[in-house]
Amino acid sequence: MTDSAAADLTGLETALGADRVLRDPGTLARYSHDDAEWADFATPLAVVLARTTDEVAAILRWADGAGVRIVPRGAGTGLSGAANAVANSVVLSLELMDRVLEVNVDERYAVTQPGVVNDALRAAVAEYGLWYPPDPASSSISTIGGNVATNAGGICCVKYGVTRDYVLGLTVVLADGSVVELGRRTAKGVAGYDLVGLMVGSEGTLGVVTSVTVKLLPLAGRTERAVIGYFPSLVAAGDAVAAVSRAGILPAALELLDETCLRAVDDWMHLGLPSGVDTLLLARVDEPGAAGDRIAAEVGELFAAAGGADVEIATDPDEIDRLFQARRLAYPALERLGPVLTEDICVPRGAVPEMLRRIQATAAANDVTIANIAHAGDGNLHPLIIAPEGDLSAKARAKTAFDAIVDDCLALGGTVTGEHGVGLLKLPGLREELGDRVVAMHRAVKAALDPAGTLNPGKAF
Amino acid sequence: MTDSAAADLTGLETALGADRVLRDPGTLARYSHDDAEWADFATPLAVVLARTTDEVAAILRWADGAGVRIVPRGAGTGLSGAANAVANSVVLSLELMDRVLEVNVDERYAVTQPGVVNDALRAAVAEYGLWYPPDPASSSISTIGGNVATNAGGICCVKYGVTRDYVLGLTVVLADGSVVELGRRTAKGVAGYDLVGLMVGSEGTLGVVTSVTVKLLPLAGRTERAVIGYFPSLVAAGDAVAAVSRAGILPAALELLDETCLRAVDDWMHLGLPSGVDTLLLARVDEPGAAGDRIAAEVGELFAAAGGADVEIATDPDEIDRLFQARRLAYPALERLGPVLTEDICVPRGAVPEMLRRIQATAAANDVTIANIAHAGDGNLHPLIIAPEGDLSAKARAKTAFDAIVDDCLALGGTVTGEHGVGLLKLPGLREELGDRVVAMHRAVKAALDPAGTLNPGKAF
Repeated sequence: MTDSAAADLTGLETALGADRVLRDPGTLARYSHDDAEWADFATPLAVVLARTTDEVAAILRWADGAGVRIVPRGAGTGLSGAANAVANSVVLSLELMDRVLEVNVDERYAVTQPGVVNDALRAAVAEYGLWYPPDPASSSISTIGGNVATNAGGICCVKYGVTRDYVLGLTVVLADGSVVELGRRTAKGVAGYDLVGLMVGSEGTLGVVTSVTVKLLPLAGRTERAVIGYFPSLVAAGDAVAAVSRAGILPAALELLDETCLRAVDDWMHLGLPSGVDTLLLARVDEPGAAGDRIAAEVGELFAAAGGADVEIATDPDEIDRLFQARRLAYPALERLGPVLTEDICVPRGAVPEMLRRIQATAAANDVTIANIAHAGDGNLHPLIIAPEGDLSAKARAKTAFDAIVDDCLALGGTVTGEHGVGLLKLPGLREELGDRVVAMHRAVKAALDPAGTLNPGKAF
Repeated sequence: MTDSAAADLTGLETALGADRVLRDPGTLARYSHDDAEWADFATPLAVVLARTTDEVAAILRWADGAGVRIVPRGAGTGLSGAANAVANSVVLSLELMDRVLEVNVDERYAVTQPGVVNDALRAAVAEYGLWYPPDPASSSISTIGGNVATNAGGICCVKYGVTRDYVLGLTVVLADGSVVELGRRTAKGVAGYDLVGLMVGSEGTLGVVTSVTVKLLPLAGRTERAVIGYFPSLVAAGDAVAAVSRAGILPAALELLDETCLRAVDDWMHLGLPSGVDTLLLARVDEPGAAGDRIAAEVGELFAAAGGADVEIATDPDEIDRLFQARRLAYPALERLGPVLTEDICVPRGAVPEMLRRIQATAAANDVTIANIAHAGDGNLHPLIIAPEGDLSAKARAKTAFDAIVDDCLALGGTVTGEHGVGLLKLPGLREELGDRVVAMHRAVKAALDPAGTLNPGKAF
């Protein structure tokens, strides 16, 4: 730390109180990166846990004057390094701003602070018969602020859309410390540019979100059913996904687990998976009543027609839970094998089998284990690249495989990130995907709203 | 026209061919404004009808060099003046770019040129069993390009969302004539800032859209039913709307016509409306099968419980059509009474009765006729202010009433435009709604992407 930086922190301590500016090595280490441990990170000058919008504004005003960078952070569960500390930065954690401020039943919206955990918001609105659909796999640990920053997806977004589709309004502190209210609380509105949409997914590079107004749906009227089928090959499973789409069915989830994934789960938990199984498809159907039952039955028939075996349909919640057990256990099962580098790509639905085939080839070529969890219904794949603990050569090969997967994804008309965000890990692929002119547009927008480059520099584009 | 402008047009003629640059007075008059005849407009220097992205790029390069402004235009059906010509401008019409380029069944998207009429796109994709939901009342005459420019809504967006929710990708010609591809064709993606969302609703001030990739839904799986009820007061109808929302029902349409509207339709078409009627509510329910039938019946019961009389439920398409006849005929019925100044505001659902009450008071205070059509399910109201033909004093009072309605809308927590856009008519209200700091953000973004101010200056914010 330079002397000037040390002097600067005194200013921050004066503004907030010395006890609010954390500088002990343990805290600095803990807040120096998110869950993307493969990406670069620096040790921050300090960590500040803000409690109010005014405090965030004071922090940004101080940073603007001191020339210190601000790295906003939710729960630090991100997988792309968007919350990794950079040089000469203070990490600004929003985790203490964890209250749901309002649930409005008649207007079907909630106003929440950014540090509220996704599942906590869902539980809070469920008490009022309302539903917040976006359900990232991290819903038990990730915060709404982080979900907004990354435009998080999830399992049900194949039918219900992603975070952006549910954000009506935001309170944002801009780089100069000014506070703005963006968006609205009404159901519709087209007043001015969609600055809410611009903020969602901008990974803290354009402003710091201090409250979020989310649109809610009625909780009633959905009946959950699960349909599963085991397929002899990726191609057969891909055919089943295409058949469901072609039949005009919009499942509320359509998940795929590949053989490596299934084997890891079975080796751990001995679920007694059928032998000769290569790929598992899991669907949810939530249309109400007999019509929904008919759709679930049709999904089962389409699974069977594409070569699916042991097709089961469950309507009982416990039974649905049992069928989705392999999905839920997949990530921890794979983590037992070594550190996991999580990919996140999205290809056209029809390209899922070919993409999975190329991923297998990449795994073989680089001598690494790659397991696949996929939101198959929307072509969003999560190849999980595993390098044995402490094997530096394997770690390097994993990184090579990671980049090869991104290249294949782009060659198949895909995008380098479906839902985890760009952060640091996807910067090379992103530049290739967007092209120079679109990257220049990003730079122009960034310079327009954060001319000094204070907010999370080097991320997102 | 100044000599320098005349010289400039020679450059445009050289680039495109003299026959493509229209300058006869009739054409100039026809293209000088959209359907917002109450807003200001200038006579353009010329009208150019582009046929390709390259031509649009050539036009913008010419304009950039010549210092001439460009006013992009679809079918000119806008109601806020966003396509009204400004001083020293060329109107760039996209109406000849009217081909649907691709319908992809497996990936459920279509790629369309901007000049395709909304209904034509819907018909084109319906042939493939697919559905493009956004349904502005202008769907038979407005183009997708215009829908994108204004982020058009419609009747079914209470359940299915607005144009922005269906735009995956755009080809955009920027102010300097460079061509960019924004967004994606995959179902999901979070690569970089949401520049697609930024362009949607920006009213041609940030770029000229030359192709649009839209997300589609399966056409199958919906069963249309209509539910109607006649209410003795606005408050009773408002109670019914609130009751439907509170019951967790998400109708596919929930429309309101007030007494002035109903009387105008009945005077014209003698539909034999029940006597003593004040307000009509029209709902659509599209859940499949018996569950949908149950929901429609519940809507009917909630209508009756709130005081609705003559409640009817229709399942036959012709019968549904008959019930929605009053909605369809309302606008032409009112146009018989004189020029209509169309308002477009959105308030919280619960504030609809109070807003309608204030509108009635405004009509009385200004001695003008105001009829109301409302997308009641999302609080989006269209007060239609009528001034008798040629009555200049009434026209002035209508304008006063227009501004008073905007003020009341803001006081009730609403937004100055729900779906028609800002254009010119909503500029005063918009500044009040957004505040200086957010307007400054708009200015910064505009300057970042169109530094010379070539594209549709003075509109949208």
